[in-house]
Amino acid sequence: MSQTTTIFSVVKQLSQYDTFEQIYHRHRHGEPFPSSDALHQIIDITRSVLFPGYFGNPSVDADTIHYHIGVNLEKLSEILCEQVLSGICFGECEKEGKLSEKQQKACEITSTFISSLPRMRKVLITDIETAYYGDPAAKSFAEIILCYPAIKAISNYRIAHELLTLGVPLIPRMISEMAHSETGIDIHPGATIGSYFTIDHGTGVVIGETTVIGDHVKLYQGVTLGAKSFELDESGNPVKNIPRHPIIEDNVIIYSNASILGRITIGEGAVIGGNIWVTTDVAKGEKVVQRRF
Amino acid sequence: MSQTTTIFSVVKQLSQYDTFEQIYHRHRHGEPFPSSDALHQIIDITRSVLFPGYFGNPSVDADTIHYHIGVNLEKLSEILCEQVLSGICFGECEKEGKLSEKQQKACEITSTFISSLPRMRKVLITDIETAYYGDPAAKSFAEIILCYPAIKAISNYRIAHELLTLGVPLIPRMISEMAHSETGIDIHPGATIGSYFTIDHGTGVVIGETTVIGDHVKLYQGVTLGAKSFELDESGNPVKNIPRHPIIEDNVIIYSNASILGRITIGEGAVIGGNIWVTTDVAKGEKVVQRRF
Amino acid sequence: MSQTTTIFSVVKQLSQYDTFEQIYHRHRHGEPFPSSDALHQIIDITRSVLFPGYFGNPSVDADTIHYHIGVNLEKLSEILCEQVLSGICFGECEKEGKLSEKQQKACEITSTFISSLPRMRKVLITDIETAYYGDPAAKSFAEIILCYPAIKAISNYRIAHELLTLGVPLIPRMISEMAHSETGIDIHPGATIGSYFTIDHGTGVVIGETTVIGDHVKLYQGVTLGAKSFELDESGNPVKNIPRHPIIEDNVIIYSNASILGRITIGEGAVIGGNIWVTTDVAKGEKVVQRRF
Amino acid sequence: MSQTTTIFSVVKQLSQYDTFEQIYHRHRHGEPFPSSDALHQIIDITRSVLFPGYFGNPSVDADTIHYHIGVNLEKLSEILCEQVLSGICFGECEKEGKLSEKQQKACEITSTFISSLPRMRKVLITDIETAYYGDPAAKSFAEIILCYPAIKAISNYRIAHELLTLGVPLIPRMISEMAHSETGIDIHPGATIGSYFTIDHGTGVVIGETTVIGDHVKLYQGVTLGAKSFELDESGNPVKNIPRHPIIEDNVIIYSNASILGRITIGEGAVIGGNIWVTTDVAKGEKVVQRRF
Amino acid sequence: MSQTTTIFSVVKQLSQYDTFEQIYHRHRHGEPFPSSDALHQIIDITRSVLFPGYFGNPSVDADTIHYHIGVNLEKLSEILCEQVLSGICFGECEKEGKLSEKQQKACEITSTFISSLPRMRKVLITDIETAYYGDPAAKSFAEIILCYPAIKAISNYRIAHELLTLGVPLIPRMISEMAHSETGIDIHPGATIGSYFTIDHGTGVVIGETTVIGDHVKLYQGVTLGAKSFELDESGNPVKNIPRHPIIEDNVIIYSNASILGRITIGEGAVIGGNIWVTTDVAKGEKVVQRRF
Amino acid sequence: MSQTTTIFSVVKQLSQYDTFEQIYHRHRHGEPFPSSDALHQIIDITRSVLFPGYFGNPSVDADTIHYHIGVNLEKLSEILCEQVLSGICFGECEKEGKLSEKQQKACEITSTFISSLPRMRKVLITDIETAYYGDPAAKSFAEIILCYPAIKAISNYRIAHELLTLGVPLIPRMISEMAHSETGIDIHPGATIGSYFTIDHGTGVVIGETTVIGDHVKLYQGVTLGAKSFELDESGNPVKNIPRHPIIEDNVIIYSNASILGRITIGEGAVIGGNIWVTTDVAKGEKVVQRRF
Repeated sequence: MSQTTTIFSVVKQLSQYDTFEQIYHRHRHGEPFPSSDALHQIIDITRSVLFPGYFGNPSVDADTIHYHIGVNLEKLSEILCEQVLSGICFGECEKEGKLSEKQQKACEITSTFISSLPRMRKVLITDIETAYYGDPAAKSFAEIILCYPAIKAISNYRIAHELLTLGVPLIPRMISEMAHSETGIDIHPGATIGSYFTIDHGTGVVIGETTVIGDHVKLYQGVTLGAKSFELDESGNPVKNIPRHPIIEDNVIIYSNASILGRITIGEGAVIGGNIWVTTDVAKGEKVVQRRF
Repeated sequence: MSQTTTIFSVVKQLSQYDTFEQIYHRHRHGEPFPSSDALHQIIDITRSVLFPGYFGNPSVDADTIHYHIGVNLEKLSEILCEQVLSGICFGECEKEGKLSEKQQKACEITSTFISSLPRMRKVLITDIETAYYGDPAAKSFAEIILCYPAIKAISNYRIAHELLTLGVPLIPRMISEMAHSETGIDIHPGATIGSYFTIDHGTGVVIGETTVIGDHVKLYQGVTLGAKSFELDESGNPVKNIPRHPIIEDNVIIYSNASILGRITIGEGAVIGGNIWVTTDVAKGEKVVQRRF
Repeated sequence: MSQTTTIFSVVKQLSQYDTFEQIYHRHRHGEPFPSSDALHQIIDITRSVLFPGYFGNPSVDADTIHYHIGVNLEKLSEILCEQVLSGICFGECEKEGKLSEKQQKACEITSTFISSLPRMRKVLITDIETAYYGDPAAKSFAEIILCYPAIKAISNYRIAHELLTLGVPLIPRMISEMAHSETGIDIHPGATIGSYFTIDHGTGVVIGETTVIGDHVKLYQGVTLGAKSFELDESGNPVKNIPRHPIIEDNVIIYSNASILGRITIGEGAVIGGNIWVTTDVAKGEKVVQRRF
Repeated sequence: MSQTTTIFSVVKQLSQYDTFEQIYHRHRHGEPFPSSDALHQIIDITRSVLFPGYFGNPSVDADTIHYHIGVNLEKLSEILCEQVLSGICFGECEKEGKLSEKQQKACEITSTFISSLPRMRKVLITDIETAYYGDPAAKSFAEIILCYPAIKAISNYRIAHELLTLGVPLIPRMISEMAHSETGIDIHPGATIGSYFTIDHGTGVVIGETTVIGDHVKLYQGVTLGAKSFELDESGNPVKNIPRHPIIEDNVIIYSNASILGRITIGEGAVIGGNIWVTTDVAKGEKVVQRRF
Repeated sequence: MSQTTTIFSVVKQLSQYDTFEQIYHRHRHGEPFPSSDALHQIIDITRSVLFPGYFGNPSVDADTIHYHIGVNLEKLSEILCEQVLSGICFGECEKEGKLSEKQQKACEITSTFISSLPRMRKVLITDIETAYYGDPAAKSFAEIILCYPAIKAISNYRIAHELLTLGVPLIPRMISEMAHSETGIDIHPGATIGSYFTIDHGTGVVIGETTVIGDHVKLYQGVTLGAKSFELDESGNPVKNIPRHPIIEDNVIIYSNASILGRITIGEGAVIGGNIWVTTDVAKGEKVVQRRF
Repeated sequence: MSQTTTIFSVVKQLSQYDTFEQIYHRHRHGEPFPSSDALHQIIDITRSVLFPGYFGNPSVDADTIHYHIGVNLEKLSEILCEQVLSGICFGECEKEGKLSEKQQKACEITSTFISSLPRMRKVLITDIETAYYGDPAAKSFAEIILCYPAIKAISNYRIAHELLTLGVPLIPRMISEMAHSETGIDIHPGATIGSYFTIDHGTGVVIGETTVIGDHVKLYQGVTLGAKSFELDESGNPVKNIPRHPIIEDNVIIYSNASILGRITIGEGAVIGGNIWVTTDVAKGEKVVQRRF
């Protein structure tokens, strides 16, 4: 009885508009909603078309692979289009605009994304090779593709980055956070990352929104590529979209738990030792290490 | 055949009471058992009533929201009551006591918990605002609420803390470990945390059991608020429940991978740089940084 | 229409053998495939037979426990045998060899693994006790067994290590990565770890492939037991299987975020402070700490 | 290999348009498709709002019932609207017409359907009472509502009939076939059936499209209310929509396996014995029985 | 908008107590509810312990079968006890009475039911043999056990009859209706049926509540063993529990679609032809057939 | 306690080999087992390749249909091969024989079955047309294909018949019983049925193992095409595989609940009225009807 009374009273309080209006998002009836299940499906299907024989049906062979890729791309096209639309609707919820126009935009973005898959496979294969040849513990490509958190995080990043570049709101960040949760590697989809990229172990790595990374770069666990500080506007809020994260040039190695902060440049071939804190430029080829105890 | 023989022999060994008696928990027939599925449901329902329009049915509006909150609170009340009871049964498994009395206690705790939800929403909105206004990469409240690991970890903490304060054994810790697993942020439900709290990126953050945190505090990834050492009793076991974690006053910022250890006080407005190790008090407004290389 | 054209063209590109041949794994028809669902079942069943009353049916008692362990071991035997076989097939995909011979090998390995379970329980109980007695925040064995990430990571490690020792390819690494994803603790199945082992909080811990750890060792979050560098062979690839990670002797404590790198020895009873970088031997009983700011 | 060749060849044959064009339905992209899962949900939700305490959450009470009915009607409204639309799209696949217009029509039909629920409950309660008072084996209303196939078939019929009357193509027939499959009772949604209607046992009952049944009518298993013959048009196809099934007036009882065929009238209060074949009118109050052996 | 208005208005109407009070069942909080999922599990488990090797784990053998039966009986005991309790609560919802007393009664009934399983297996084996030896189309026992609807219907009947005899309300009828829906065979759990019983094809068979059937009886599809009429009490309601269905003695065969109605006796060894209507006693050994056209 | 004692004692009784040896099937380890889930998948996939646009992905079009059929036939091939093998293993459980030989046989049968699909589609389209043109209540092909029980039963029959003809034990009967349960139509897979076949309503129809049906035949609900009697061998068991069911020539119509029994011939174009019992030949074009009351 008193339980029912409590529920009654709490329902009343929690239903009052002014108690949640600050954060309230008014969803328009009939528009799709971002769905983490759908995003997981998108990742799974993309993996299965990029890495045939490892994800999805294992027994694809040269003769029948096009059936599988055909069905998977049709499905990807359908699910991704709806999620892209949900992102657009979320991002433009205050703008008026016909749903059918947003739908067309979502379809075009989806098409462009699908066209980018062959290029994405090419780059991801460079990442896999780098992981394999750089790790004495790696026994096979299969181990890299099926188990290594770096490959999960980097493939989600490459997918999310493509979508962000195509102007999709919200969804790219959800995709990169899915990998963050699974691997402990937090790569903002806005970062720019070259090929032959790898991360060893990975837990705790942070790569900020405006980071630029060249080719053949290797990071270890716990590395932060972050901002040192950020400008505030006159109302005291941070100014968005200002470059504030480091530029890492080709062939750089950064060891575990190092923090590289601010819009500085780590020159080509430089090596940054573990557990250190770098806030100024590092010259080409330089080696920066913690003083030992 | 020999497979069957192996199984026979191993069944016999593993069934011998003395091989597991040290850790054995005798579950009383008819008592509920902690269920991580049920706890996930509890978190999901709580999120859906606190943040309408983001979790659960997206199309709630001012007119129909009370139906949804009503059904959800009834369901929460039922599932939570059973889990609270399972925690009580676990915690008091050596005490005699009628199941019906434990049931009534579980119901009362559940009612009190539900009554606290409007207050909890108010505080969580301050956390969301802080995350949004403090991060140049954040594009919308939706991004914060749907993706940011900090909000997941902090909301699980606030739920778990409320239950711990109400005297529920085991369950609060399970809830905070669920967030730890998902986000890499480990906040002990016993910690005391003010409003306007945020954590950036978050992986590797540890906040110990007796930590006290004021308002408007911001942590970065990898920060430890830990114990330096702990007292042992005469049998060499650690003495439980002694304050051994830091006090962080209002408006403090602690950068990535810093470790603040022991019952020390970080004074109001202090700033702690990254990758450093602090074991003594820091004065109000002080800035503590690592020496650069 | 143009959507269909895009799909057609991308199917064609992604189906071309030379675009994926570098990483392609040719799965033989009729051979089983590694399945993360099956591996999760294997972990769940193993936990339920090792820790009766906590996982699986909670109401097992001394009288009926053998029914449950019997059914579970039969099921484990069946699922594990298939996964071991899938690992063997993956590992030996270039070798010819009758499937039935591989099957028999898989069966024998499974039998040996099952025979090791009583010993594994004994060791894991020492880990649980160590976690309990060493943590003032721990309220009960139940809390340790049901929530502590260390126990999840260590039990997956002990299972994976046993399988690796028995010569199973791929599967052990998948099992340890499952725990890595869930807990942020990355223990390579090749490492050798004694009894009474524990890890506090755990996120960010890395224990490399050739690490050797004695008894009664305790690690905190963020600790790396890693390699300093590794030899390359004449083609510039890393030489596999060379000892390159530290030896940690009995009774050592290593505090949060410390990095111990290379084939060095941390002597019995040594204490390594947090956030430091150790690349040379540490003597028996020595205490190594960061210089404070 | 030859398996692959077979598949190749059969794919080719089965993909040729002329081998399926006769029955092919071209589904327009973006239009919903009839889904038997969705229809099952529609039936389940409708049952739960009509018979509170039996279906859906059992613990609804006078105080909280409106929460449950509110949430359920919102959900019903959403799912039903999509299924009605799918029916309209199927039925009018050859007509051009904007999707948004069809959507609006589907919404209006759904609204009207929902408005009819209170009336539908009233009639169904008369059917339940009739089943209960007319069967010595019935022990409680619960038994009738939870188990009796007649109630399942009649409630699906009443739902399907309402939708058919509102002009929905295809969906009503799918709903009545779901009940046919579950109960063996085949009631065409086009039939007109009064209140206080019941069917005992029910398997094998057939009630044709243009049947008219009054109030207080009872049928037994195996009864057919069918057509005797039907007119063909000049191309030899049956003329649709012509009354060709019987009219059963109030208070009639028809015993097991009787067949009543053609547009004949069974007069008020008549009794038709089992296993007989009736193709001419039966007068008010008459008793028609099989000659015994 | 108008959709919301409709929902508001219909919620209000459907929530008014007087519109459903006639059929309303007030469920007491904390009491279990009949669950068709649970009943399906009960049937599945019972089948797996009665017919080892056909249902449940197929690879049970003489050595390990007791593990499987042990686990299954424990599980059956738990689920059945809750469902029996739910039946008791439903049946006695107007009586006061402590839940714990009802619980004890449910446990005792469950125990007695489980004790009856060996006897039930013995009888069901006679039914299986009869089906096999009496049907030229039957190729193996496996075909009988895995496919024949008669065995499904008869085993559900024997389970339901046992529970009804033990005084369980509602649940037995739900179990027999499950088989009715699956097979089209409607056997009331109150009927009494001897051993060596079989039904060929089965759809449309009805066996009423007070029917008594001897040993070695065979029915064909569409046979009704029904009531001819029933007494009404002074308020015009049927008098419950009066014998009103036939007695079928040993070795009787009844062909398809025959109806045997009323408390008559079909004497030992009699044969009843198809499609006929029998309402008076048939002597021992007599053959009753339809006159041919 | 006494519950445990009961379970102990019943486990013991039910585990005794002699209590189930009569019906026991010894499953060989490693052989697949018939699975009704797998058989449902087989039916669903077969329907989706035969009737594109109705089952499976609704949006297949002429351009992409081969992807879908390709993936579906590969999947069908895999699942069906395993189920055919399980049938062979069941059917030949007493014969020795290498598993690999049985596997090859299963593969060949599967290949032949898949090759028959184009022909099967052709015949099924004649059945669909017949149902459509013969029923004034049918509104569209979609209604026939998606709802009509006749089409479900006939397509399962055509699949099962093909498999039986190829020599597969057990599985064909399981497939036809699945349709029997769903539709109440019981067609033995051994029957021979021509094209342009339909059944109206269908519940209660029985078509026996050795029945032969020509083209353009129509049955109504409750029709039995059965055996009148069957020969016994010297041990009193029925002689299997003797023709004992009727031959129905082209263009015959049989109305509801008629029983045609024994190896008789119903001549071309004959019409059999409802509820009658026919045990002798019927001449070409004859009309046989029940005498009216």
